Amino acid sequence: MKLTAKAAGTFAIAPTPFLDDGRIDDKSIDGLTDFYAQVGCNGVTVLGIMGEAPKLEGAESEAVATRFIKRAGDKMQIIVGVSAPGFAAMRSLALKSMDAGAAGVMIAPPPHLRTDDQISNYFKQAVDAIGDDVPWVLQDYPLTLTVVMTPAVIRKIIMDSKSCVMLKHEDWPGLEKITALRNFQKDGSLRETSILTGNGGVFLDFEMERGADGAMTGYAFPELLIDVVNLQKKGERDKAHDLFDAHLPLIRYEQQLGIGLAVRKYVLHKRGVIASAAQRKPGVAITAQAKAEVDYLLSRVARYDKRANIAPQSSAAG
Amino acid sequence: MKLTAKAAGTFAIAPTPFLDDGRIDDKSIDGLTDFYAQVGCNGVTVLGIMGEAPKLEGAESEAVATRFIKRAGDKMQIIVGVSAPGFAAMRSLALKSMDAGAAGVMIAPPPHLRTDDQISNYFKQAVDAIGDDVPWVLQDYPLTLTVVMTPAVIRKIIMDSKSCVMLKHEDWPGLEKITALRNFQKDGSLRETSILTGNGGVFLDFEMERGADGAMTGYAFPELLIDVVNLQKKGERDKAHDLFDAHLPLIRYEQQLGIGLAVRKYVLHKRGVIASAAQRKPGVAITAQAKAEVDYLLSRVARYDKRANIAPQSSAAG
Amino acid sequence: MKLTAKAAGTFAIAPTPFLDDGRIDDKSIDGLTDFYAQVGCNGVTVLGIMGEAPKLEGAESEAVATRFIKRAGDKMQIIVGVSAPGFAAMRSLALKSMDAGAAGVMIAPPPHLRTDDQISNYFKQAVDAIGDDVPWVLQDYPLTLTVVMTPAVIRKIIMDSKSCVMLKHEDWPGLEKITALRNFQKDGSLRETSILTGNGGVFLDFEMERGADGAMTGYAFPELLIDVVNLQKKGERDKAHDLFDAHLPLIRYEQQLGIGLAVRKYVLHKRGVIASAAQRKPGVAITAQAKAEVDYLLSRVARYDKRANIAPQSSAAG
Amino acid sequence: MKLTAKAAGTFAIAPTPFLDDGRIDDKSIDGLTDFYAQVGCNGVTVLGIMGEAPKLEGAESEAVATRFIKRAGDKMQIIVGVSAPGFAAMRSLALKSMDAGAAGVMIAPPPHLRTDDQISNYFKQAVDAIGDDVPWVLQDYPLTLTVVMTPAVIRKIIMDSKSCVMLKHEDWPGLEKITALRNFQKDGSLRETSILTGNGGVFLDFEMERGADGAMTGYAFPELLIDVVNLQKKGERDKAHDLFDAHLPLIRYEQQLGIGLAVRKYVLHKRGVIASAAQRKPGVAITAQAKAEVDYLLSRVARYDKRANIAPQSSAAG
Repeated sequence: MKLTAKAAGTFAIAPTPFLDDGRIDDKSIDGLTDFYAQVGCNGVTVLGIMGEAPKLEGAESEAVATRFIKRAGDKMQIIVGVSAPGFAAMRSLALKSMDAGAAGVMIAPPPHLRTDDQISNYFKQAVDAIGDDVPWVLQDYPLTLTVVMTPAVIRKIIMDSKSCVMLKHEDWPGLEKITALRNFQKDGSLRETSILTGNGGVFLDFEMERGADGAMTGYAFPELLIDVVNLQKKGERDKAHDLFDAHLPLIRYEQQLGIGLAVRKYVLHKRGVIASAAQRKPGVAITAQAKAEVDYLLSRVARYDKRANIAPQSSAAG
Repeated sequence: MKLTAKAAGTFAIAPTPFLDDGRIDDKSIDGLTDFYAQVGCNGVTVLGIMGEAPKLEGAESEAVATRFIKRAGDKMQIIVGVSAPGFAAMRSLALKSMDAGAAGVMIAPPPHLRTDDQISNYFKQAVDAIGDDVPWVLQDYPLTLTVVMTPAVIRKIIMDSKSCVMLKHEDWPGLEKITALRNFQKDGSLRETSILTGNGGVFLDFEMERGADGAMTGYAFPELLIDVVNLQKKGERDKAHDLFDAHLPLIRYEQQLGIGLAVRKYVLHKRGVIASAAQRKPGVAITAQAKAEVDYLLSRVARYDKRANIAPQSSAAG
Repeated sequence: MKLTAKAAGTFAIAPTPFLDDGRIDDKSIDGLTDFYAQVGCNGVTVLGIMGEAPKLEGAESEAVATRFIKRAGDKMQIIVGVSAPGFAAMRSLALKSMDAGAAGVMIAPPPHLRTDDQISNYFKQAVDAIGDDVPWVLQDYPLTLTVVMTPAVIRKIIMDSKSCVMLKHEDWPGLEKITALRNFQKDGSLRETSILTGNGGVFLDFEMERGADGAMTGYAFPELLIDVVNLQKKGERDKAHDLFDAHLPLIRYEQQLGIGLAVRKYVLHKRGVIASAAQRKPGVAITAQAKAEVDYLLSRVARYDKRANIAPQSSAAG
Repeated sequence: MKLTAKAAGTFAIAPTPFLDDGRIDDKSIDGLTDFYAQVGCNGVTVLGIMGEAPKLEGAESEAVATRFIKRAGDKMQIIVGVSAPGFAAMRSLALKSMDAGAAGVMIAPPPHLRTDDQISNYFKQAVDAIGDDVPWVLQDYPLTLTVVMTPAVIRKIIMDSKSCVMLKHEDWPGLEKITALRNFQKDGSLRETSILTGNGGVFLDFEMERGADGAMTGYAFPELLIDVVNLQKKGERDKAHDLFDAHLPLIRYEQQLGIGLAVRKYVLHKRGVIASAAQRKPGVAITAQAKAEVDYLLSRVARYDKRANIAPQSSAAG
């Protein structure tokens, strides 16, 4: 099913599982997909920044995307990150992913863009390249991408392209941006658009209150994201915050630039979801001390949320 | 008393209080200083990045620094941020501050520095400018300053200058950096240096466990920083984390780039410590919605820490 | 006489002369001012990026600006660079300069500005700070300042502020930008504005043909700039290019980022205009080999332009 | 023949020829290769920054590289730019290029590298990826890549990897860097390395005098680069400068960031070397006015160098 502007809920940002020798771990792709479906994710975004996408060759990217898509089947929507240095590679991966059954693609702005016009023109060209029948997600992530998009520029990009159906919002701070975009919709200047939020989930509690439709991020407990999204939608504010706050120390720890992915893979491996915590080179390993800190945080989270009570794995690769 | 490499505990990063019309609020400087002393801060750092220092003229900077210093008297050590586009202004403010009784000065690297040599040479020139009898704090804050210093470069800077007595550590992530520097000291390649940590306190719980000597940041509840520092020093790890975690949702909220200072001034004003939450232009105001979010967070913190139970002020200027 | 949108001709970007020990060299300020007047400059811009302005303290900046202004008297218009990290310092220097008789001030955008709105808002705030009766020059220099302003943003800034009378154009490449701005004036969307061009003069030949009103740069032979501006205004295109091309190898050499100022001061010292080629610390010195290269280039220029035939100075400080 | 540290002379940076519809123009690859061989180039570097490499898909890159290599045969050495966001793609293109008969590959540092260690480690990992039997060229181009490598870091990279045989030097300014590296060789701390210089040739006159072994850049008259290199090697300094200076106005015009490639393709098309001046999207077109300026410059160069006397093409696609 193709992605629409009504998309909501929780989309997990999937890491790409590798074997210890750096080859892609197909079996763990299957396991990871099953896990996301089982806990109740509405979708999965693959080959994002946290998916080590730039380390893959073109053919590998297609294979990884296809495997996730096939495994998810009708259970979840798969969005494929197709950001690339050039439009030829972007087009190629987008078309092959859609052919394989992807729900849509995600595009981030390249770091050299500066002016409002440069940014909105870039996305026009991207849509020219992939075709205007491919639903796509606009990624707004200034902290990492160094491209700053005002609410007005985001509106222009969305109004310029009917096939843009979702914003992955991860400006930081970004609460007022959600409010500004929702106000554009109230005044009729912006059409309906799904807004899912990233940034590791570190502001998800309030983002939902500001009008987000859900979460799109890779926290190693997607269950928590799902719960907070659902509780907020039901109006159970205090409960949502109580649960969120119990996880915040770990969410915060996982959000460290550079080592966040290592922490995430460490926990997913510990949970038995992926076979190895290895990253493809050049990867960042976490130290024994960092692992002990994560374990301590897990034990503290487990006091409030028993899902964090992880039986230790026999062998930890991370 | 001059700053030494044995400095430890909690140094508050002070905001500069302004009146609603943008003039400096001397009375609130006094009140703020008294507040920091009363809650038990070991020192205060003024005219830092969060102190709106670049908005002040030279004479104003001297006046602000002097007022803090005089008011603190023997009760706390005052460190003056003297980072400046040129060494003439840096020297001038450093000498005037030391004459007025400052404990030391703090210097951040300017954003154009790139190579290891450029960085270490810059600090040599800075010490030439201010004189090698002025104790100084090296600020390591890559996220905002865009200058990346390896542990080895930090070591070189410290070993090059006897008057460098402290590192204000706010790399992010930075836990391994603390460990690396402490290991340099164990292997004898780095002399004793005080390490206080910043970043709004968002990793203070673990930074203390990695070997930090204390906190130097501006969280609107310095009492919390003091408690966490002290509990960790006493080895009461769980207690430290319990208290820290109760504050983390607010610490996290305050750490938003750009609006963090507005949140901080809003809370300090609400606590009655400063007369106005105003920033000098160009300042960032927080919306009514953001204020309500902060109020909600305060009420939640207050369930565990009654110091967050603030009686509402009659008129809020922020 | 205050600067107006009709300003044209050649405005020299003046270096700030220092003595070998780093103090300001007042006598050389006088000599430099007399030299610019004598060769026929219409104005001089002081305390620009090439004027080592950030190395001066507030009081020094005022003193340098005032000395240039007083010495120029009625002979030339003096523009004072007032770019500063904060508006208080900007306002202070602008008002003192205007009181002393400056023709106007020049403002560059600070490097953190990214979006169109951030840029145009910044200049609104700057005009609020200095007052709307102070004629000012907008500096557009992306290569060094990293702020990219589209023609439409420049138009907005100018249309927002009646007191903006001139663009210092040094985008690179920038020929099409001049054409775009002149076309805005033809279609009535932009009012009259003076455009002087910088970038060391390296495109002055064509910039004049695209509609520039003159040059504002610091090439050590302002005579060449004046001649090219005048020849182009008289329509003597080939003659303008012939003369320009004779100087281009040296113009090119002088335009090297970082050492350009050292080359410029070396030549001005060699010409007897300033007493020392010294820069205030941290300065860049040129090597003996670089000096020999400049001397060689001078000798080659002198084959076509005898003004480059400089009798060697007895002692070279640079 | 594989590239060695004795490589010298002129290596042309080849543009990638496209048809007007954006497909690769194989016939023009042949024509361009023949042209470079005919005028006397020692080698050609393909898929560099000016080769629009990021716009190609993986399979296209291999095809372009292979076509250049096959056509060059024994006449010239082909170096293939293999810079890529990840090592898998870099390795793949490097191995396929070497299999096809490339002389070596060229690697530029990715823009996020900051510290000395990050930079030298990156190149160690790159060599791990491509294998230490593939001769490679280190590209040093801070202005565009934003990575600043000191002479000492370059030395470390070269000494760490026996297979690094050449530096493509295009720091700017960079004359002292050549001297520093040659001095390292004199003092025995750096082994023999070829240094070819880029930057559009704008400092080639002096770079040869500082010790460069030749040119590696894409000026549309490689004949001029060859002549200057040869004249300087024969010690005919004045002649070298005379010829260089005649071309400098055009070299300078071609060196404009962003539109330089459009100018280059315009001239190569005008010379009949490539069938179309088109760039693959997103490309930069040059205006009619810019074309007229280039034509004017060509006519002026032709007064001294009759090779610039180009009979106008019947239809210009650029």
